Amino acid sequence: MSDNKVVGKATPRITAFLEASGTAQYAPDIKLSGMLHAKILRSPFPHAVIKKIDVSKATKLLGVVAVITYKDVPRIAYTGEGGPPSISFTGEAERPTEAFPKDEYILDKRVRHVGDKVAAVAAVDEDTAEEALELINVEYKELPAVFDPEEAMKPGAPKIHQSEKNIAVHILNEWGDIEKGFREADYVFEGSYKTPRQVHAPMEPHGAIADYNQYSGELTVWTTTQIPFVNQRILSELLGIPMNKIRIIKTFTGGGFGGKDEILLEPICAVLSMKTGRPVRLILTREEVFIGSRTRHPATIYVKTGVKKDGTITARHVRAILNGGAYASHGPSVTAAMGSREIGLYKSPNVKFDGYCVYTNCPVAGAFRGYGNPQQTFGIEQQMDEISEKLVMDPVELRLKNTIRKGDLNPGTGMKLGSCGLQECMTKGAKKMGWMKKRKMPKYSGASKRRGYGMGIFMHNSGCVPYLPECSSSIVTVNSDGTARVLIGSTDIGQGSSTIMAQIAAEELGISLKDVSVTSADTGIVPFDQGTYGSRTTYIMGNAVMLAARDAKNQILELASKVLGRKAENLEINEGKVRVKKGNKREIPISKIIVGFQFAPKEGKIVVGKASFQPLGNAPYFGAQFMEVEVDTETGQVKVLRVVNAQDVGKAINPTAVEGQMNGTVYMGMGLALTEDQVVDEKGRSLNPNFTEYKLLSASDMPKIDLIIVEDKEPSGPFGAKGVGEGGLDPTAAALANAVYDALGVRVKQMPLLSETVYKYIVGKK
Amino acid sequence: MSDNKVVGKATPRITAFLEASGTAQYAPDIKLSGMLHAKILRSPFPHAVIKKIDVSKATKLLGVVAVITYKDVPRIAYTGEGGPPSISFTGEAERPTEAFPKDEYILDKRVRHVGDKVAAVAAVDEDTAEEALELINVEYKELPAVFDPEEAMKPGAPKIHQSEKNIAVHILNEWGDIEKGFREADYVFEGSYKTPRQVHAPMEPHGAIADYNQYSGELTVWTTTQIPFVNQRILSELLGIPMNKIRIIKTFTGGGFGGKDEILLEPICAVLSMKTGRPVRLILTREEVFIGSRTRHPATIYVKTGVKKDGTITARHVRAILNGGAYASHGPSVTAAMGSREIGLYKSPNVKFDGYCVYTNCPVAGAFRGYGNPQQTFGIEQQMDEISEKLVMDPVELRLKNTIRKGDLNPGTGMKLGSCGLQECMTKGAKKMGWMKKRKMPKYSGASKRRGYGMGIFMHNSGCVPYLPECSSSIVTVNSDGTARVLIGSTDIGQGSSTIMAQIAAEELGISLKDVSVTSADTGIVPFDQGTYGSRTTYIMGNAVMLAARDAKNQILELASKVLGRKAENLEINEGKVRVKKGNKREIPISKIIVGFQFAPKEGKIVVGKASFQPLGNAPYFGAQFMEVEVDTETGQVKVLRVVNAQDVGKAINPTAVEGQMNGTVYMGMGLALTEDQVVDEKGRSLNPNFTEYKLLSASDMPKIDLIIVEDKEPSGPFGAKGVGEGGLDPTAAALANAVYDALGVRVKQMPLLSETVYKYIVGKK
Repeated sequence: MSDNKVVGKATPRITAFLEASGTAQYAPDIKLSGMLHAKILRSPFPHAVIKKIDVSKATKLLGVVAVITYKDVPRIAYTGEGGPPSISFTGEAERPTEAFPKDEYILDKRVRHVGDKVAAVAAVDEDTAEEALELINVEYKELPAVFDPEEAMKPGAPKIHQSEKNIAVHILNEWGDIEKGFREADYVFEGSYKTPRQVHAPMEPHGAIADYNQYSGELTVWTTTQIPFVNQRILSELLGIPMNKIRIIKTFTGGGFGGKDEILLEPICAVLSMKTGRPVRLILTREEVFIGSRTRHPATIYVKTGVKKDGTITARHVRAILNGGAYASHGPSVTAAMGSREIGLYKSPNVKFDGYCVYTNCPVAGAFRGYGNPQQTFGIEQQMDEISEKLVMDPVELRLKNTIRKGDLNPGTGMKLGSCGLQECMTKGAKKMGWMKKRKMPKYSGASKRRGYGMGIFMHNSGCVPYLPECSSSIVTVNSDGTARVLIGSTDIGQGSSTIMAQIAAEELGISLKDVSVTSADTGIVPFDQGTYGSRTTYIMGNAVMLAARDAKNQILELASKVLGRKAENLEINEGKVRVKKGNKREIPISKIIVGFQFAPKEGKIVVGKASFQPLGNAPYFGAQFMEVEVDTETGQVKVLRVVNAQDVGKAINPTAVEGQMNGTVYMGMGLALTEDQVVDEKGRSLNPNFTEYKLLSASDMPKIDLIIVEDKEPSGPFGAKGVGEGGLDPTAAALANAVYDALGVRVKQMPLLSETVYKYIVGKK
Repeated sequence: MSDNKVVGKATPRITAFLEASGTAQYAPDIKLSGMLHAKILRSPFPHAVIKKIDVSKATKLLGVVAVITYKDVPRIAYTGEGGPPSISFTGEAERPTEAFPKDEYILDKRVRHVGDKVAAVAAVDEDTAEEALELINVEYKELPAVFDPEEAMKPGAPKIHQSEKNIAVHILNEWGDIEKGFREADYVFEGSYKTPRQVHAPMEPHGAIADYNQYSGELTVWTTTQIPFVNQRILSELLGIPMNKIRIIKTFTGGGFGGKDEILLEPICAVLSMKTGRPVRLILTREEVFIGSRTRHPATIYVKTGVKKDGTITARHVRAILNGGAYASHGPSVTAAMGSREIGLYKSPNVKFDGYCVYTNCPVAGAFRGYGNPQQTFGIEQQMDEISEKLVMDPVELRLKNTIRKGDLNPGTGMKLGSCGLQECMTKGAKKMGWMKKRKMPKYSGASKRRGYGMGIFMHNSGCVPYLPECSSSIVTVNSDGTARVLIGSTDIGQGSSTIMAQIAAEELGISLKDVSVTSADTGIVPFDQGTYGSRTTYIMGNAVMLAARDAKNQILELASKVLGRKAENLEINEGKVRVKKGNKREIPISKIIVGFQFAPKEGKIVVGKASFQPLGNAPYFGAQFMEVEVDTETGQVKVLRVVNAQDVGKAINPTAVEGQMNGTVYMGMGLALTEDQVVDEKGRSLNPNFTEYKLLSASDMPKIDLIIVEDKEPSGPFGAKGVGEGGLDPTAAALANAVYDALGVRVKQMPLLSETVYKYIVGKK
């Protein structure tokens, strides 16, 4: 593949000019004639029943066009996660429908967290809609609430949904004989680790505009979403509109990180548009994004590991309690991911995963970059450090000894690894950090300062097989001037997937990148795709685009073979021209072939390539992270001085985008580790729903990050590529906590590592 | 095919609710942020050179953003017709590039007709743009002008382009031995027939909005056009923008009739948008549509026919002189169509066609429903009437004796007729009119009134093979609820093609019509198509849609076969459910199969059907028209009392739409015959460029029209269908003139048959 011309080259985003010039249209930029503006009334109580709701005053306010409550919406339950299509069929996916509790309504008579939806207003402008909210008279009957998942699981706890003990899902996955494994161990380590309520904090808040045409019965929705086709299906189920009459158009999207992998605003917008006969726009405020969208699952991870003296792991038991908040959302899938795809990173013959996603009256947790992996890794990778200390083995050595390798089965999924650059990531990363030397250096770095070094590793899936046997599809058409267009369902949410797909198509077609355009994420145009999530796009859609482009190319070569008098398989396209492989110098521009296809008598065809791709596995990608930190023993403040982030991505289709993801995940992992936590008080109220009090790291907080791209080509990936967008944040917090331990001898088993938290640990140790 | 469930059923347009409710977006409805409004300065002279042009005053007017003249546009010649792609290739179409004179520029230093483009202004509103036009100072040098094509062909006539004798094209097509044919004849008939300058008069004037993004280099054009993909190609050639960066979106279109089968406004709009960096909107006034768009070719048709006493035609010579106006446009193709596809209707062994399209300083003639056929038929069908009178043969009998039949070769094209319901149209039409009886009745119907009966026939092509070996392509995707979407390049310009395509897809897929949506005519979405013209859409695109739907269906049946344990070929889809043909009652909704396709492990596919179709022939369709007229001998006024219009359409996919076309063509043919003529004076000025003085027939002018749909199924057509949209107007004027002759014994060889014209003939005869 060393002769790739487009793939593997550092490439600016093909959408960069639109984004940088301000001409890209984001959801708030959509202006439709007669458009109304919506606002949502939100619950001030964590748990209550609406006894009475009077909207008469609000309705009479000049400029208000509609007010809706639970009385005005279909009484159909759904899950914001989407869930599987509600059918049962011989060949359907192996995930049980029960695992996806349909526990949400567009609007409900009961509210289950502070910020839950109570009513919605559509008015001529946002101020009027806001004013109308204050005129809605609600009489609540408060119900007892519970905020801690372990409390919520106790008998007698307030019941939030129908589930017994408030358990939204319980995932149990076990292989070998866990008790036997612990009996065979020389040492058994146990610990529990707590992780916070991180928010996605995309620069662009959630927003949608729905336009229902009451004459044609067609609903068009512009929305900043990761999952247009899931939106189409859920809206169809909720509103009774067939899917061919629903068009979801993803606007330019200013970040998702999983937070837009949910059905959140679209149903309310659609109902308001159907009621008013006018387009309705709903853009959340930043505070609403905090309290009314989704967060990462706060979790407690209990990890128990048995090891031999030589470091061989004999047994591992992970028990995870996830705080799901008021609705199940992605909780069941997140728990399942932790217990199947991720748990197999270490080759223990005896494993038990026991995970609970629990309802509480907290803000709702959902999909979030990493999808359970950062929480679980925070526990496991710290415990690995504890083991290595006890055994007096280097942490890298211990991991090299126990981790899964190419050709191994991941026992959590039963799938064989086609590629695995993890070991190379560890050795190259350690070398880059100067690991062996630095770990032995004195920890003092000033009066009260101590320096430390830590590391952690990850395995992350590219897509969700076998949990979700998903597939992607693409259409590639070639214009008569030899330029091409790629149609895909994938949503570019800022990560640059459209650029990747253009590169893949250009490479496969043998034309230049600038000659490829991408049309994406509009259900009225492109074939079905599940959406952008789970590090799936490059791997799954990348394959579909490559195969569709190959189909188009083969059509071109077929006709060219008649002109050149050579078999199609002996031809190739180079720089937009067809030529004989290793042959003479005769070349024909593909534009000529295309026109020949279109207009030649008895040929007459349009070049349209198409392909579907379903992966047989989830082609995990891997990485190792190394941290150098400095801790102030007098304040507990942790400063990250340097990060080495080594990742095996199979093949970096666009090194620029890969570096962006590798840097971005470290940034987000550091935020999770050091500062980010949406704090909920004893009445369920979020105390810091804004960027002043919820502390995101800024550029000045960021250390030097050395990136090492390892390319162990995945045989099933397009040009060898697999995922990249999430895994880099899985081990960051653990590596950081390990570095803090290296500096202080103090193990902080709780994120974020705020100064006061670390300081308490320091004092506690003394 | 008698068990069709959707095809063949009278069906309202699927777009009717949008159109009737006023929510359909036509070009003038497109409003973009920062949009400018353009106006065109037009020449007051029929032929002149611009000596000086000063735009400084106009540019300084408050609100004017740009003024462009020939100095500001690329000096690249093109033809509004589009012409063939400018490449030469072994397999390319058999039409010579020379036949498409590239004689137009976006703006030129020379003007060639009154109304020709001189300059264009973009301003903040239309009034300001209009005002600015008056401030443009132009100094012309007038050149001698010529308006009559026969004058223009004479030596010494003013030369309008480079062509010798102003001949834009000369088409000569000949078979047999024409002189021998005339020698063998018992009688030879000769006559010349003149036809007027009819205008398309679509309810919606031409309009376009161009939006060039200077940051991304992408050009988006919304336009009311029949040919979005030709627009894309020509704009690419003129502006140097690759095709993947040009997106042409056809808006809802209020009629085309060939008048929007041209590149007219889009280049000017695009240049203004590129110059200003803002969207630019240009909507023609009605007067501009008259003088600045296209018209039908006024023509003189010389017909000479040799016949035996028994009525057998032995030779036919047609000489046609078309007034092309200032630019060639479709003239060459129109002339070629007359001389190849149409001339073969009568089985003469010896034929010569000798056609000229000639430049004059008149308004430009272009594509127009009928495409030369109405002009030629006005001559031939009148002469057939003269022959039948001379031979004392009934006109129907004479035509039955001489016309081409199923299985015959059309010698003009070398193609065999796969179907031909012409003879059935004649016999059924005659019966319906009571022809044999009525022709013998007394002609008196009141003091000065005379009644008469006439008839005429036609053969019209479905598409343009072999002149243009065109093809169409379609993509059909099926949603997970079993509804479907059809992607096509065809432009619905009011004729209802989207409805036809939805019917074809629904029928083939075995689902109901409401479950099919159509996305069309957007070059950013759909695969290439040449556009809507030449009665091609139902026949060619209909086949592509049928085959694409079949491809999708086969994919569904393939998976269903695994579930039902039967071979796919033994399965069928009925009402959205897969079942065993003639088998047990087990049925599976296709929605289940679709989801199975998407999510089943190791199946994972999206249902995307696609197909290209290129016809091997042009599947002519046929018809016979019978007219009953009443003529007032004191005023010359002709009143049509009744029309019988019998047409063989192969298969009426949507009888409602077929009836619409059959009525609409009679209406347009009667307008051509009776009143319509854009009159140009001796200085090249149009005297009646408005709907007050250019007389369109109104509802009250229309007689009872009896429609007879004959269905001689075309083996190569989708469900047997062929074209319908044009042919009905080919024989209308001739049938009407024949009826007038029957009433008065006066043969009017000149359209329109205005009262004064007919009266002059009456006086002339006396």
